[in-house]
Amino acid sequence: MTDTGHLHHHEEHLHSSDFISDIVIGMADGLTVPFALAAGLSGAVASSSLVVTAGIAEIVAGSIAMGLGGYLAGRTEADHYESERRREVDEVERVPEREKQEVRDVFAEMGLSTDLQNVIADELAKDKTKWVDFMMKYELGLDEPDPNRATKSALTIGVSYVVGGLVPLMPYFLVKLPHEALLYSCVVTLVCLFIFGYFKSKVTGQPPFSGAVKVMLIGALAAAAAFGVARLFG
Amino acid sequence: MTDTGHLHHHEEHLHSSDFISDIVIGMADGLTVPFALAAGLSGAVASSSLVVTAGIAEIVAGSIAMGLGGYLAGRTEADHYESERRREVDEVERVPEREKQEVRDVFAEMGLSTDLQNVIADELAKDKTKWVDFMMKYELGLDEPDPNRATKSALTIGVSYVVGGLVPLMPYFLVKLPHEALLYSCVVTLVCLFIFGYFKSKVTGQPPFSGAVKVMLIGALAAAAAFGVARLFG
Repeated sequence: MTDTGHLHHHEEHLHSSDFISDIVIGMADGLTVPFALAAGLSGAVASSSLVVTAGIAEIVAGSIAMGLGGYLAGRTEADHYESERRREVDEVERVPEREKQEVRDVFAEMGLSTDLQNVIADELAKDKTKWVDFMMKYELGLDEPDPNRATKSALTIGVSYVVGGLVPLMPYFLVKLPHEALLYSCVVTLVCLFIFGYFKSKVTGQPPFSGAVKVMLIGALAAAAAFGVARLFG
Repeated sequence: MTDTGHLHHHEEHLHSSDFISDIVIGMADGLTVPFALAAGLSGAVASSSLVVTAGIAEIVAGSIAMGLGGYLAGRTEADHYESERRREVDEVERVPEREKQEVRDVFAEMGLSTDLQNVIADELAKDKTKWVDFMMKYELGLDEPDPNRATKSALTIGVSYVVGGLVPLMPYFLVKLPHEALLYSCVVTLVCLFIFGYFKSKVTGQPPFSGAVKVMLIGALAAAAAFGVARLFG
């Protein structure tokens, strides 16, 4: 029971991880980059409204770039899987002996004896669909992707980026002086980065407290560097 | 010969892809987000120097956030591999029968007969290192990560982001009026996005021309949206 429990746990982890990892991708950058940009501009311009304009432009730019980037990545993965599968189906038909040797090679790499390699290759060759499935997964290391992955991925990443990006920008809507707004923005965003880092680490099975501190430090470092450099150029 | 050529090609592809994919990650966002931010601000502010300040702040923020994000991802992958490996070593020692069943489960999922599953599990169990290697790769789907991956990844992503981000910003250093600079920035960046998209598609085995067009369109769309939204708020 512990046995199947262990395997089941692993599979569940893989299932939920597409959606969760898209949220993590979008929100990690959404909380960090607009925060650091706003902080950088706070050291270089006189009015919060300019920070808001730049921040909004960044959120739009970042969410579209990351969202459509996620869409393309998803489409590319699906196209790649399809074209590789067509090739394997064709090869199993055209050059079965060569494909059988590839099955043997996979098991040779696992450290199995030549006898066993032959028996396995013969058994798999009996069912062509199974054979192709095997080649896809174990020779090429490809899992069949979810057909709606690209669209879901684009939306999840884009929305997460917007939600994350509005957090550091909020104070600049409400406080006129960018230096003052920056203080509130730091407090609010660092708290959110800590909470985000905590849950992100929990989900990915890392120690949550040190993970939270690391995520928060990256945000603080990016903001401090942007502040310093923008001041030099501003 | 074609056979090993095929496998060899596949492995080479996997080898080079860490470095290449880091360049792609950094440069895709570096070319797109600062470009769109600069375009957005060009519709809302009167002086190119402000666009330069915001652009520099964004490049610093983005390269640190993405670079350190890549570092954390690399460290997390390495830590995860180590902790899973320790657990498998421990389980092979403590509950060998359960682990043998997990080996059989892997081959049952491949569609092999119960007899073969038993023979394979017995053979693998003879060498504990091989056995743990097998569990890591085929039960958990984990490959041993490069120990320097995190640092290399951080530097490659960060530098690629800076290089990409300076392209759309260059015209604003040279041309005073942001509206004028935007024109040059569009031409230079869209050409670079096309070239980048072309090579990216070649490397990932996609049709290069349509890939180049897609990457260029994402950049143009992000820039147009940022321009429109910043104008509303500016």
